[in-house]
Amino acid sequence: MCASQNHNPGHRQAVLLINCYTSCLTHHFNFDMPRLFLLIIIVSTLIQPGFAQSPQADPQRLEHRIQTLSQFGANAEGGVDRVAYSQADLDGREYIIGLMRDAGLTVRIDAGGNIIGQRHGTDADAKPIMFGSHTDSVPGGGNYDGPVGVVTALEVIELLNDAAHTTRHPLQVIDFSNEEGGLVGSLALTGKLRASALDVVSHSGLTIYDGTKAIGGNLDNRNDDQIAPGDIEAFIELHIEQGAILDNSNTDIGVVQGIVGIGWWDVTLTGVANHAGTTPMNLRDDAMLAAAELTLAVNQAATSRPGGQVATVGRIQAFPGAPNVIPGRVEISLEIRDLEQAVIDAVYADIEQRAIEISELSGVAIEFAPIDVASHPAPIDPRMRDIIANAADQLGLSYQRMPSGAGHDAQDMVSIAPTGMIFVPSRGGLSHTPQEFTSTRDMANGANVLLHTILAIDQGALDQ
Amino acid sequence: MCASQNHNPGHRQAVLLINCYTSCLTHHFNFDMPRLFLLIIIVSTLIQPGFAQSPQADPQRLEHRIQTLSQFGANAEGGVDRVAYSQADLDGREYIIGLMRDAGLTVRIDAGGNIIGQRHGTDADAKPIMFGSHTDSVPGGGNYDGPVGVVTALEVIELLNDAAHTTRHPLQVIDFSNEEGGLVGSLALTGKLRASALDVVSHSGLTIYDGTKAIGGNLDNRNDDQIAPGDIEAFIELHIEQGAILDNSNTDIGVVQGIVGIGWWDVTLTGVANHAGTTPMNLRDDAMLAAAELTLAVNQAATSRPGGQVATVGRIQAFPGAPNVIPGRVEISLEIRDLEQAVIDAVYADIEQRAIEISELSGVAIEFAPIDVASHPAPIDPRMRDIIANAADQLGLSYQRMPSGAGHDAQDMVSIAPTGMIFVPSRGGLSHTPQEFTSTRDMANGANVLLHTILAIDQGALDQ
Repeated sequence: MCASQNHNPGHRQAVLLINCYTSCLTHHFNFDMPRLFLLIIIVSTLIQPGFAQSPQADPQRLEHRIQTLSQFGANAEGGVDRVAYSQADLDGREYIIGLMRDAGLTVRIDAGGNIIGQRHGTDADAKPIMFGSHTDSVPGGGNYDGPVGVVTALEVIELLNDAAHTTRHPLQVIDFSNEEGGLVGSLALTGKLRASALDVVSHSGLTIYDGTKAIGGNLDNRNDDQIAPGDIEAFIELHIEQGAILDNSNTDIGVVQGIVGIGWWDVTLTGVANHAGTTPMNLRDDAMLAAAELTLAVNQAATSRPGGQVATVGRIQAFPGAPNVIPGRVEISLEIRDLEQAVIDAVYADIEQRAIEISELSGVAIEFAPIDVASHPAPIDPRMRDIIANAADQLGLSYQRMPSGAGHDAQDMVSIAPTGMIFVPSRGGLSHTPQEFTSTRDMANGANVLLHTILAIDQGALDQ
Repeated sequence: MCASQNHNPGHRQAVLLINCYTSCLTHHFNFDMPRLFLLIIIVSTLIQPGFAQSPQADPQRLEHRIQTLSQFGANAEGGVDRVAYSQADLDGREYIIGLMRDAGLTVRIDAGGNIIGQRHGTDADAKPIMFGSHTDSVPGGGNYDGPVGVVTALEVIELLNDAAHTTRHPLQVIDFSNEEGGLVGSLALTGKLRASALDVVSHSGLTIYDGTKAIGGNLDNRNDDQIAPGDIEAFIELHIEQGAILDNSNTDIGVVQGIVGIGWWDVTLTGVANHAGTTPMNLRDDAMLAAAELTLAVNQAATSRPGGQVATVGRIQAFPGAPNVIPGRVEISLEIRDLEQAVIDAVYADIEQRAIEISELSGVAIEFAPIDVASHPAPIDPRMRDIIANAADQLGLSYQRMPSGAGHDAQDMVSIAPTGMIFVPSRGGLSHTPQEFTSTRDMANGANVLLHTILAIDQGALDQ
């Protein structure tokens, strides 16, 4: 019985734990896999006092690596300006490549500029399990969005190295290129990068094409260096939540149900500009007033139905924009996000209907122009959600199933492999700012969940 | 009896009409003046068929002068860029000076750069009656805002010249300097120009101090060249309405009740900027949403009470202003105008109260910073309103008593003399645009009302 093997001391515990999983799953029982997996967890949790001493992420190592990475592109506010293709980005990537090599990984940079570090497996026919995130930042960004996913992926390798355990599947740690500039690395890797994106000028001043070359990739070869559906066993991304749901509810782990789709529209409200002193209130076609009503309608459309959909007016401009002129034109942005396209469509339909009513009452014309950057929802494989949830359970960590409101490289990976996402808390939900913060403990919790998730997959949790 | 004198033909009619007023008022009756004046009007209207042939403004002359003036600073859109102190302004002023001299006026430029053309009176002790407006424009302005008041003032002189009639009071036609840049000429003339205004850079690129020198004034001498309270008998400004009240109601003349006071505030709404995808609707402190509610509250505060008060949000800026970021800060302008300061105060109090409620519900802080450019209401002397209304009546013109929603030089003159304002219609209420338009007929109607107003004052209508 596996349980008895777990009383040995030292780092051998990790090996034994892993061997326990493997032998249980492949030799001793004849159950179907999900039931078998569940049994393992129950047995492990209930009767193995030694489980709490299973391989644990090293908080100091994680924190040290996050702090080291924070020096590349450090800004005065305590965050980083490590935009893709900049010298700071190159320096950060060099650091990651060094850590990968030190951990014994075989490192290559693919056509899309992604850094991929491979650890061999025991089974020559097994497909790689890939995991990681990105290390580039937005301008004026923080130290956790992206890097936490890369250093925890490296931590998994370190723990396996410490345990001298070789998985059946090869493992691939990935540091995606230019995530913040439009998921460039994952789009290239999955064959979805549009030709039109190559000429887009990034924050570094380089085009995406030239920038990718500067970090060692070559987008001319992107068609020959893709991952096709079925090429890898699974992909897992650990990321900070960038929201306050986990922090507010004091929950350790977010099990991502899917990455929301995003609808974007430019909305133009056209009334009549006029003198704010000489035009009586009842003779106005005030575009600002109509914009205010529409902004409230946007909020109403998102909040008046159950579910996690969000709708936002983030940008506004009034013309001519003088205190003593009634605005004749107002332009606003509209963004709607949800896990289901049908919900995005329904919220938009509500807003459009209200716009018709507002227009009729105000005499202000309202036009919606859809913007091409919108993305469709990317649901996460239900098996992957359960594997992550079970891993959290195994470790005695609280977890919550939740959508990812932000876009991630994982959304591109969904199309080629079973994909999972693990969230760790963001203090106050702050992100894309130097105030971004995730505690050492939360990072270590995440690394442990990531390790257990990978081990479960390695041991066949997806093979039903 | 006066009435019988009005049957003579030709331009003598004017002289006789004028003599009739004079003799009636000063010799034949012993009534108090207002009653006497009213009697004259009734008698004139009812029993003098010749009144309709009293001196009439020459529509062609008015139109020709407006069109000529429109050439100085003409822009491609059919309007003018005749900003104060520019070459176009100098050219326009030179044209006005020429017309004044041709009409026999004695022309001087005062310390504030105002052009004043004087016509002598018969009574050496009588104080001047002053009337006029301005000829400078806003950038991208129209051809009527200001010029109509100057060419109709000159038309009054032409009609008196045609009639060879000399008034008892001296008459002063004034073309105020830099009205559009802050009522500079009338502030200087009435001793209210602040020292801090001198260094303000005008649209011409010159400071107000240097610009005034460029047009022949000298603000160093402004304290020695003022009009003190009681120095002039009256001031009258004719101006286009710049609103649509007269045009919409098909009314010939606006009798201005007062020039509205203006309250300006900068309003800052401070919430928390956050990720628009990862922040659930119920965890947002959305400054944009609070700004929308406040904008509606501003409208509500102005429209929920009887009266002509107006309140406007004309400027808005959201920070950071990206479609995918919940705005953490929104800045809006607030402007409230009314004839009574108490109403401005009450509307503001309503808005402030609503702001407190919005703030409590939304978690968004709202601060109001008053802006120094605000002006107090300038009520028009009730006697002047009645004199203008009676003049319109005499001429068989429809009129409406109304506020001036825009600022005018007349608001500065209120403090030193009985001041009246005559409005003529603006087509569609458009102003400060090349589309600005007032018909030849409306200008002629205005000139006639101005003439009759001046004659009534000359003949003692204010001497109660």
